Amino acid sequence: MDPMTAGQFSLVFNAFSFTLAVMGAATVFLFLGRSQVSHQYKTAVTISGIVTLIAFYHYFRIYESWQSAYVVTNGVVKATGVVFNDAYRYVDWLLTVPLLLLELILVMRLSAQETAQKGMLLSGLAALVVWLGSPGEISADPGTRWTWWALSMVPFLIIVFQLLVGLSKSIDQQPPAARGLVSAARWIILITWSFYPIVFVLPMLGVSGGTATTYVQVGYTIADILSKAAFGIYIWVIAVQKSELSTATH
Amino acid sequence: MDPMTAGQFSLVFNAFSFTLAVMGAATVFLFLGRSQVSHQYKTAVTISGIVTLIAFYHYFRIYESWQSAYVVTNGVVKATGVVFNDAYRYVDWLLTVPLLLLELILVMRLSAQETAQKGMLLSGLAALVVWLGSPGEISADPGTRWTWWALSMVPFLIIVFQLLVGLSKSIDQQPPAARGLVSAARWIILITWSFYPIVFVLPMLGVSGGTATTYVQVGYTIADILSKAAFGIYIWVIAVQKSELSTATH
Repeated sequence: MDPMTAGQFSLVFNAFSFTLAVMGAATVFLFLGRSQVSHQYKTAVTISGIVTLIAFYHYFRIYESWQSAYVVTNGVVKATGVVFNDAYRYVDWLLTVPLLLLELILVMRLSAQETAQKGMLLSGLAALVVWLGSPGEISADPGTRWTWWALSMVPFLIIVFQLLVGLSKSIDQQPPAARGLVSAARWIILITWSFYPIVFVLPMLGVSGGTATTYVQVGYTIADILSKAAFGIYIWVIAVQKSELSTATH
Repeated sequence: MDPMTAGQFSLVFNAFSFTLAVMGAATVFLFLGRSQVSHQYKTAVTISGIVTLIAFYHYFRIYESWQSAYVVTNGVVKATGVVFNDAYRYVDWLLTVPLLLLELILVMRLSAQETAQKGMLLSGLAALVVWLGSPGEISADPGTRWTWWALSMVPFLIIVFQLLVGLSKSIDQQPPAARGLVSAARWIILITWSFYPIVFVLPMLGVSGGTATTYVQVGYTIADILSKAAFGIYIWVIAVQKSELSTATH
């Protein structure tokens, strides 16, 4: 493990604990808030809560793994020899990243056929992004990291294209009062997801040691909070809004 | 860690355990009591319960951290060298303090636009109060502590102004039977929140060592119980009252 200063160790440690609390809170909020949306939006909200629940579990593991990798005595940080298991992140993303795109598809309430098609395509691509990124993440060699980063960017860019172009016809069919919210959800995905390839690249840009570890861990943590907890609650807001619209019409 | 007497160690230890129990109990009360308020007040009560749930989590960590910082053998307290992680409090407040103001805004049931505006403004200011306080809290130097305390008081006083003046028009639009309760909620926030800057200042007024630690930890604990658990239940009372009014009218 890279040597860390006491300040770096604490910052990462507290960021993990913070995220654990955020994911737990978001899960409870979404599972309770599920009762406030109508029948046809319940699955979207359930999945939003499941994503934050899976992240809650993994941040618990990440927090424990971080604690066992270092020992701090009287302000001095020493590596224990136990490795910090960064793979928890990829295991988490392999499950949650496809589900995040499903949240959007489900809250749009497309036809059954379109839901299946777009859902399979987008979640398959999302799993591929994570799958191709992982061999790079576990490598310390910049060349290997760049190769897998570039390969992972291919399905990533196809997702960007699908969200911005492939979904635009379906967006036009959303009820006018919800159209802006649903369209903005695509942009929230694009902006929050773009954190990940940037954070991934940091150790290849000359940042090294404890500083690189701190940037990467805190960076991924912020990206996870925005793309999972904040996005999940945004999906709930859309579901509440669309539920009120359908109640008003009938 | 400051040397503590056995009495001081136990007082803080039992205060943490007490608060853990209070926060857990308040969470269960609020989540069960959510079914007793009408549709439009459910989010306010959900958030009240989430605040106490987040505090429950952090008091669990604080309790464990306190236990690992000292060892008591035959009535003699010795520091173990493991530092007590006071940052849990700031991590907690960063999440819960903005949510506490949202509870008030949501139970007032303003227009969607006003809810978004006032909610963003007040919760942003609340996060700023906590953010600016934290560099002072981790410092032992009175000068540094006073500087950040003063900076943190700026958004704090803007919140006071917003609650007393900015919200007064919205208070006037509350149903007459609930107006007094909602107006009093502002005062409960102001009174319970004013504990924090006072407790923060104690170590700068000549109180030091184990005595200062005891005052600060017990002081923050009392403030947290009042501002989170007691305030959350008060919000529920308002929600129940307003639910009955709206059922009576329709």
